[in-house]
Amino acid sequence: MIIDCHGHYTTAPKALEEWRNKQIANLNTPELGPKTADLKISDDELRDSIETNQLRLMKERGSDLTIFSPRASFMAHHIGDFNTSATWAAICNELCARVAQLFPDNFIGAAMLPQSPGVDPTTCIPELEKCVKEYGMVGINLNPDPSGGHWSAPPLSDCSWYPIYEKMVEHDIPAMIHVSTSCNACFHTTGAHYLNADTTAFMQCLTSDLFKDFPTLKFLIPHGGGAVPYHWGRFRGLAQEMKKPPLSEHLLNNIYFDTCVYHQPGIDLLTKVMPVKNVLFASEMIGAVRGIDPETGNYYDDTKRYIEAADLSADDRADIFERNARRVFPRLDRVLKEKGL
Amino acid sequence: MIIDCHGHYTTAPKALEEWRNKQIANLNTPELGPKTADLKISDDELRDSIETNQLRLMKERGSDLTIFSPRASFMAHHIGDFNTSATWAAICNELCARVAQLFPDNFIGAAMLPQSPGVDPTTCIPELEKCVKEYGMVGINLNPDPSGGHWSAPPLSDCSWYPIYEKMVEHDIPAMIHVSTSCNACFHTTGAHYLNADTTAFMQCLTSDLFKDFPTLKFLIPHGGGAVPYHWGRFRGLAQEMKKPPLSEHLLNNIYFDTCVYHQPGIDLLTKVMPVKNVLFASEMIGAVRGIDPETGNYYDDTKRYIEAADLSADDRADIFERNARRVFPRLDRVLKEKGL
Repeated sequence: MIIDCHGHYTTAPKALEEWRNKQIANLNTPELGPKTADLKISDDELRDSIETNQLRLMKERGSDLTIFSPRASFMAHHIGDFNTSATWAAICNELCARVAQLFPDNFIGAAMLPQSPGVDPTTCIPELEKCVKEYGMVGINLNPDPSGGHWSAPPLSDCSWYPIYEKMVEHDIPAMIHVSTSCNACFHTTGAHYLNADTTAFMQCLTSDLFKDFPTLKFLIPHGGGAVPYHWGRFRGLAQEMKKPPLSEHLLNNIYFDTCVYHQPGIDLLTKVMPVKNVLFASEMIGAVRGIDPETGNYYDDTKRYIEAADLSADDRADIFERNARRVFPRLDRVLKEKGL
Repeated sequence: MIIDCHGHYTTAPKALEEWRNKQIANLNTPELGPKTADLKISDDELRDSIETNQLRLMKERGSDLTIFSPRASFMAHHIGDFNTSATWAAICNELCARVAQLFPDNFIGAAMLPQSPGVDPTTCIPELEKCVKEYGMVGINLNPDPSGGHWSAPPLSDCSWYPIYEKMVEHDIPAMIHVSTSCNACFHTTGAHYLNADTTAFMQCLTSDLFKDFPTLKFLIPHGGGAVPYHWGRFRGLAQEMKKPPLSEHLLNNIYFDTCVYHQPGIDLLTKVMPVKNVLFASEMIGAVRGIDPETGNYYDDTKRYIEAADLSADDRADIFERNARRVFPRLDRVLKEKGL
């Protein structure tokens, strides 16, 4: 079984974007709408958007199940206030829940949170719990920078984030640490801000004792961990100078990396440097990089090919493709076991 | 000959730091001093600080010449105003010039600029020209984020930077793109901010046509290019979607990467993914990571060992160790040729 732990609903029907544009246009006059009920997307439209896109590619490439969350760049937590984000997150999460209901063998949900700059993360808990309890979602996406590139929130080790972590532990769900669109002209969203955030989040964990406070907390760092595996010597050395335990103890019982690295040498480095238990298969397909690599003739984001070509045993590959995801997402494992998988 | 293109004066006599602390203490009362003339560091003190540190390690490890600039984390352009930075940069550059004068066979200078947040980069030109003309410096360090982690300056492709680029072209000097200390709690200076800045600067170049305007402009991206080589597929794919030329044409005639990557797999990736002509030997020794790697028994920042162990021909290695630096720093090449080297 092949589980892709990083998929976003990047192909939602156009009506979703139109609704959001109206919401943004009326940020200062929310009484002019739109209302949640104004958004009407039928099951057929959902089915079509998935069957012709993600599901088609999953079949072509040979993956079985995608952990599916709202489009990351559309979260745009920097827009509006908490109410703006709350309404938007509820809509986006519900759509992912419906996709998972329509395609229960191929998709399972992960939630975006209604974060907003300067707003206490505790306010995200009702949406988080609804997504877990009502929608059966198995993880969340946590944005370490709701300001969208101004980095005005405290580091992830700050106590203000702890209420979220308590709920994650209580419900046995991991968080993918994923920023959204950059509204800072310095940072290209998918070429700089995403990768920077991955590196930044890792270093925030490294300098802190967060996982002493939450020994079972799990963070999944996407995009192959940003710059982390490439600079693993630097991180080991920095931890050493700070008198932290070796990273294998200090961080690698809690931090995992996905395989959204879009060329063979990158995947080779990732799987060589990181313990196999810390690597989870993912593609973020139909995402940041949708083209075909002229050097290989294959899609850049067809990461399954790179894992297959990497110097790994069949057992290692099974860990990366399936078992690690079931360990990191225990609620997913339970769902699969109930199905006899 | 082995040229280390990335060294900072991290071991300057304590008096320098004490002077700076007084300057910072009197930011709002500069009339209380200190004056530039209050800093007194003798040639013997300079000699001692170099002979017992950088030069000792250069001899032990086998490198010959270091391109030497003021300590990057001490630039701290976010502190004070232009006058603060102007005085500080002048002092730091003069010390590096004196080191180069005392050890002409082993050190040659590169300048820090008196940047200050929100201040027109044109103000840096007098210091830049003094360093080139009077001190014989062969490059500059350009900080893409003088705010120290708030990223309030425009991207490097913005016209406001052009006066600096015009002077670089005129004097035939490259810029190392190097940030300084982060004053944003989200970013650890050497573990996150440095690497993020490298990735960010590369992406600012990728999305722009900067090198069409300045075909001979040269940027050296330190720390192995941040996340860039590890995610080379992502960057190639993003450029492709933006209808940019292949990166080999679009950027690789102008952008170079140093080898400050502190483990073998990272250097192996860098030298595999990047054309040899774009890789310059560097260690940033006595810098961010000063310890010994327990996995190898060698210093993390003894990068020469990794280059020697990488799968490279003798010719490739000579390019990385010497020839590329002489191409990217033409003024250095001239100095060496004058010496018959």
